[in-house]
Amino acid sequence: MFTATVKTSSQFQIVDITKIVEDAVSKSGVTEGICLVSLPHATAGLIVGEYEPNLERDYLRFFSEFVPKSDYEHNSIDDNAEAHLKSAFFGSSKAFPVSGGKVLLGTWQSIMLCEFDGPRSRAIQVIVK
Amino acid sequence: MFTATVKTSSQFQIVDITKIVEDAVSKSGVTEGICLVSLPHATAGLIVGEYEPNLERDYLRFFSEFVPKSDYEHNSIDDNAEAHLKSAFFGSSKAFPVSGGKVLLGTWQSIMLCEFDGPRSRAIQVIVK
Amino acid sequence: MFTATVKTSSQFQIVDITKIVEDAVSKSGVTEGICLVSLPHATAGLIVGEYEPNLERDYLRFFSEFVPKSDYEHNSIDDNAEAHLKSAFFGSSKAFPVSGGKVLLGTWQSIMLCEFDGPRSRAIQVIVK
Repeated sequence: MFTATVKTSSQFQIVDITKIVEDAVSKSGVTEGICLVSLPHATAGLIVGEYEPNLERDYLRFFSEFVPKSDYEHNSIDDNAEAHLKSAFFGSSKAFPVSGGKVLLGTWQSIMLCEFDGPRSRAIQVIVK
Repeated sequence: MFTATVKTSSQFQIVDITKIVEDAVSKSGVTEGICLVSLPHATAGLIVGEYEPNLERDYLRFFSEFVPKSDYEHNSIDDNAEAHLKSAFFGSSKAFPVSGGKVLLGTWQSIMLCEFDGPRSRAIQVIVK
Repeated sequence: MFTATVKTSSQFQIVDITKIVEDAVSKSGVTEGICLVSLPHATAGLIVGEYEPNLERDYLRFFSEFVPKSDYEHNSIDDNAEAHLKSAFFGSSKAFPVSGGKVLLGTWQSIMLCEFDGPRSRAIQVIVK
């Protein structure tokens, strides 16, 4: 298993982690298989798609409109229910095919860590089988 | 493959199935690999996150607001289109890394079965490779 | 790895690809394992659930209401931000258990490709381990 750490710098942020995953697959020596990327976190998520600054702002705007600030019960304990709800929708793990020793991503696909409750230090786990 | 059954007791419910998955990984004997949890159901889903009573109520409230009762066409056949829509968003399978013979979950991560059309008997399939 | 191509015929469409996945699992010769289905695309997605014409229209209606046309910044570059947002929610890969040489799907589960920005030619990658 490969582990990397990313430090986010704001409450809501999108970080392109494609290179981290590509390096892990390369180091694994697996030529054909499955690459699983997982975050051991409950207030972050993973998405796959085009990474460009305009769309990054669109993602962040949409996510905030989708789960607006509200009087969630969890907020009486820890004021981050919105982050948990977003994380539940996107999930904390994604799997990718590996072929020819490389992770197969389309031209417009990047792997992105979505920070919903930063800034924090986030661990990225990659396993290739 | 390991299979377990959970009986839900109400229409909307969240059931913590982490222990079922941990036991399956332990029994598999796999020390490093991928654990796949899957539900053979179209009106339930899986989420991963913090499991505590306040947040459980927040999840259920948000899911019902997110897909409100409406005049969906499927409801003329079987009155559960809302459950199908929720299931499509969350998905019926989740994969987790296994290392040191254990499923890797963060401190605040539990694996939860979301019942969207209960009460029913739900099968949980776990495969570890 | 197995690859198939599906040509979609309209902007928004749902295509049942269950047979493609079942055939790939059969050809793989794997009797017990994990089947990963992946799309190398950023404006399509995969869902799993009941495939019937009424529900298909419900899915398409809900997805369009969920991410309505808006003034997203990405649309100044390429007028498909809505498709990217939908794809981020549903994801481009899904994993399924394989047992007895077959992909395990429930009675009401079909694997569906969701076209959010068609018509296009879409590649489907299936790997079984």
